[in-house]
Amino acid sequence: MESIAIMTSGGDAAGMNPAVKCAVEYSRKKGYKPFLIRDGLRGLIDGKISEATRADVSGILHRGGTVLRSSRSERFFQYEHRKTAYENLQKLGINKIIVIGGDGSFRALNQFYEDFNIPFAGIPATIDNDIPGTDYCLGVDTALNVIRESVDSIRDTATSFSRAFVIETMGRHCGYLAITSALSSGAEILIAPELEHDLDSIRERLIEDCAAGRDHIIAIVAEGTNMGEKLTSWITTNLKMDARLTVLGHVQRGGSPTVRDRIMAYKFAVAAVDSLDAGNTNQIIVFNDGNFGCTPINEVADATYTLAPELLKLSAHLAK
Amino acid sequence: MESIAIMTSGGDAAGMNPAVKCAVEYSRKKGYKPFLIRDGLRGLIDGKISEATRADVSGILHRGGTVLRSSRSERFFQYEHRKTAYENLQKLGINKIIVIGGDGSFRALNQFYEDFNIPFAGIPATIDNDIPGTDYCLGVDTALNVIRESVDSIRDTATSFSRAFVIETMGRHCGYLAITSALSSGAEILIAPELEHDLDSIRERLIEDCAAGRDHIIAIVAEGTNMGEKLTSWITTNLKMDARLTVLGHVQRGGSPTVRDRIMAYKFAVAAVDSLDAGNTNQIIVFNDGNFGCTPINEVADATYTLAPELLKLSAHLAK
Amino acid sequence: MESIAIMTSGGDAAGMNPAVKCAVEYSRKKGYKPFLIRDGLRGLIDGKISEATRADVSGILHRGGTVLRSSRSERFFQYEHRKTAYENLQKLGINKIIVIGGDGSFRALNQFYEDFNIPFAGIPATIDNDIPGTDYCLGVDTALNVIRESVDSIRDTATSFSRAFVIETMGRHCGYLAITSALSSGAEILIAPELEHDLDSIRERLIEDCAAGRDHIIAIVAEGTNMGEKLTSWITTNLKMDARLTVLGHVQRGGSPTVRDRIMAYKFAVAAVDSLDAGNTNQIIVFNDGNFGCTPINEVADATYTLAPELLKLSAHLAK
Amino acid sequence: MESIAIMTSGGDAAGMNPAVKCAVEYSRKKGYKPFLIRDGLRGLIDGKISEATRADVSGILHRGGTVLRSSRSERFFQYEHRKTAYENLQKLGINKIIVIGGDGSFRALNQFYEDFNIPFAGIPATIDNDIPGTDYCLGVDTALNVIRESVDSIRDTATSFSRAFVIETMGRHCGYLAITSALSSGAEILIAPELEHDLDSIRERLIEDCAAGRDHIIAIVAEGTNMGEKLTSWITTNLKMDARLTVLGHVQRGGSPTVRDRIMAYKFAVAAVDSLDAGNTNQIIVFNDGNFGCTPINEVADATYTLAPELLKLSAHLAK
Repeated sequence: MESIAIMTSGGDAAGMNPAVKCAVEYSRKKGYKPFLIRDGLRGLIDGKISEATRADVSGILHRGGTVLRSSRSERFFQYEHRKTAYENLQKLGINKIIVIGGDGSFRALNQFYEDFNIPFAGIPATIDNDIPGTDYCLGVDTALNVIRESVDSIRDTATSFSRAFVIETMGRHCGYLAITSALSSGAEILIAPELEHDLDSIRERLIEDCAAGRDHIIAIVAEGTNMGEKLTSWITTNLKMDARLTVLGHVQRGGSPTVRDRIMAYKFAVAAVDSLDAGNTNQIIVFNDGNFGCTPINEVADATYTLAPELLKLSAHLAK
Repeated sequence: MESIAIMTSGGDAAGMNPAVKCAVEYSRKKGYKPFLIRDGLRGLIDGKISEATRADVSGILHRGGTVLRSSRSERFFQYEHRKTAYENLQKLGINKIIVIGGDGSFRALNQFYEDFNIPFAGIPATIDNDIPGTDYCLGVDTALNVIRESVDSIRDTATSFSRAFVIETMGRHCGYLAITSALSSGAEILIAPELEHDLDSIRERLIEDCAAGRDHIIAIVAEGTNMGEKLTSWITTNLKMDARLTVLGHVQRGGSPTVRDRIMAYKFAVAAVDSLDAGNTNQIIVFNDGNFGCTPINEVADATYTLAPELLKLSAHLAK
Repeated sequence: MESIAIMTSGGDAAGMNPAVKCAVEYSRKKGYKPFLIRDGLRGLIDGKISEATRADVSGILHRGGTVLRSSRSERFFQYEHRKTAYENLQKLGINKIIVIGGDGSFRALNQFYEDFNIPFAGIPATIDNDIPGTDYCLGVDTALNVIRESVDSIRDTATSFSRAFVIETMGRHCGYLAITSALSSGAEILIAPELEHDLDSIRERLIEDCAAGRDHIIAIVAEGTNMGEKLTSWITTNLKMDARLTVLGHVQRGGSPTVRDRIMAYKFAVAAVDSLDAGNTNQIIVFNDGNFGCTPINEVADATYTLAPELLKLSAHLAK
Repeated sequence: MESIAIMTSGGDAAGMNPAVKCAVEYSRKKGYKPFLIRDGLRGLIDGKISEATRADVSGILHRGGTVLRSSRSERFFQYEHRKTAYENLQKLGINKIIVIGGDGSFRALNQFYEDFNIPFAGIPATIDNDIPGTDYCLGVDTALNVIRESVDSIRDTATSFSRAFVIETMGRHCGYLAITSALSSGAEILIAPELEHDLDSIRERLIEDCAAGRDHIIAIVAEGTNMGEKLTSWITTNLKMDARLTVLGHVQRGGSPTVRDRIMAYKFAVAAVDSLDAGNTNQIIVFNDGNFGCTPINEVADATYTLAPELLKLSAHLAK
């Protein structure tokens, strides 16, 4: 009986736990012996690896974050530590890995595969939704709904006064969270890296709006634009409206996974086990146009993430 | 300038309000004058139709149900009442309709189109997700997440005792809600119309499970199977476990729309306006394999809804 | 060093877990060695008793239900089983008990005290809020907020149609949940055991209301009145409005404890430890007029729960 | 028939809307004609005053913020503007005011009373819970539960890594929110203005804790201490743990009022109407030891808010 080890790596995202649970159960059903690696790459080096028990994956489905825990490991960049990791797996007879995480983790596992020929399948998970080659990454839907509740709640306060709120969402290079949140919360201003913004035009539009009765403004800003503070004072000066900045921060990462993140986690996990079972060696599971598939790691690692043009089209008027 | 009237019809579903808002704003952008019909088909007959104002669609995005209200109208089956409805539209110069609702409403509007040549575009909205020809209907994601919170909450109680809970979800002929909820909540038993169930096999499986340490059971039953009470007493008798039935009921319909329902509402509304603008006359907007398209009403009206085989495959073991 | 054992008993209620956590930590601080009894009275007989570890009470604060689990035990009514229970405690050197539960559990522990002289302190916990002598029982605030979210959500649907919803809350002999929920959700009709209702007067009032523009009705019914179905058909017949019944059921028990239930749990637990530490033998911790105190078990066991007159005064007009 | 005008003033707080609704309905029941003042003190000067209709208070119970809107008005400090305000009331025959807000608003209304002899009753509402003389202010319970959900959610992320999170709550001079949140979320560190903190002792305690297995830390900091950034870097340096700061910000103000805030709003509103009806002229409604009462404005305006000693005792160990 072959063994598969399952791990989470990089930043945590809602949906990791259901993915772990399903990977354990489905690989067992397919005739594999499932193992769990704790603490991410660090645990792989330090040998925190054990066979998955029923108790390990019971009651984890609805929990946010990752019960396997995660880490960022500098040591894994060095061959000797990867060699230790390899020996840990050898001792336990493990010859396949499922890694749930971001593209940095995928690249690390790919190096490991090139060194020691341990095949892996990657399940994209990051709230930024910025992994190239896939429309969806685990954790995004939960993060979006956490942001939604915060923005809906802040709107209560905004409508009680004549006031503007600037809300900064996560997302270093990718404006997916900001753009989708601006649309789904009916924001009036959106600043995201993928959209050219034009403050003059925004001023004109909103002065007109305010003349027609608008008495509060919600602006969404992607973290990566560094525009939070600047826009807040710009609004105060240019729209003569009291403006406040709220940086949503780590609240966005947590929370019980939504139904979509749970179901996607299942489907990603099934596809990952099937991919390894079919003999694939270093593939990432991707979801595009409603379907799951595999894509070679290089296509993910070397590509740049781009947003769906449709999303940009729907939201472009909020940046102008 | 041409005019488009927007209405909601049939059972209410989360996502109707953002769809109305976006249909108003996008049709205006495309050069139409948007109108709102209140109270569904009844309001169409009774002339509750007015031009959409800014205030009409302000602050509705995050509200559950439909602010346009809905109704079921027997009168619309009669030609004379449809004629009155037609005259109401004529007076206001309205020659296109967007209807957000279920297939019954689409058929009614199609009859209206055949009578008076008023083109319409249908946006599928029903929490049952049972409209043929589209993978997604507005309201489904919100309903699923409301169910998820209820089941997660009931699980707290189940784990505090040695107890089974049977939870009945909505869904007359279609088990989509029950099946997806069973998967996403990690239920142990699932009874849905699309899945043959085998109580003997369920008993055997769970007696084994309980011997291995299982101390509580969650069962999900689709309303349409009429198995709620039966399964509850079956569990008490066959698994020797105290069992309780909870019928979730109308709680499932309500709640602020999730991000997915808001974004899908936007995209459906854009596609509906575009379809009418392109000269289509009686098409339903559908979402399949990640893409939006149009499908003639007949293909919806005459077809039977079938669940994705993948979903059945993922869940079949819970019925056995 | 003396030892205190902590247990939960009877129906589960949110707030039990923070009470357990605080009782463990505060009793340790006061110089006691804390033990945990699992599975309620059944576990007391079966010897499921162990010293509390750090891990036992870590990460339990925010969880609904009771991680110590609970049970109803017929055996505890028999002297021989209570004797076994006593011997279990003797072996471990335990001579004090804190029991978190309802008045049935308090009576059981009092019998145990009379048999074997093991002092106990009772912390009232039940979502019904029907324990005599205390204004507040753990779990009530969480249950009320779960009901609130359900009713707010059902109201979305009610306002989308011209429709009435009858919502049945838990509460066998006590209408506290129903009354408070009716007030806090702005219901139009309330049927509770403590309030005489007058259907003729309700009809008159609501027909007038509907004439003045009311287009939907929310009615709250306490489980103990058995009026759910009857009122639903009464509304259909008498108010000519489509009416639906929703029985909230076990959803009400679960959910992460609210802040109030967490803070009250702490204060109850501190008072329970202090009461035992002061040498009290069979007292219930009560909360009245904003203050905590102790009351002899007999005053609880023999009394009948009565609702605050103020609450009845605020709500009486909803039953007429 | 005498008239009472109802207004909200100062920072918004959940519970204002149910208080407005109940003040309107109860004053009408007592034989008064209720009016609404919009936009706070500014609206009082600008004459935004109208008789309360059924529609004004329908569907507002569950909404956060204040539908009457609020403002801060410099003009009200000047006699001439107060005179205008007085004339506005005179024209409409209004001779009593209920103001829902903070102590600044109460002082403004008291000046108005001294100028023009218009009696008022004040209902304390502020999420900071820092109004002297009352144990409870409207909005506090909702704010605490919003914070709870954020902290519970951040804890998911904290337990996925070895990481510390510093969370800053609102509260300028008063640590009530921070202290109660630290207790109810099981935080390990608490910095509040009312508690002397000792970083050396905290370091010692947590180094010990971490040695015993603790792998994440939650710290709660009250805004007024200005310690957010400092503590974050202190943890990184002294506890060798990656630490992040999250400033909760305006999210805390919003959200649908909890059951407690709705019920308290009712009781405050009833007491306010009763106080005016009894001939009181400038009293604040207070809630102490579980009971409502009136207190002269001077006792509120001149006093300093102090926290309950019990709360300080329960939480002091978290600052050491």
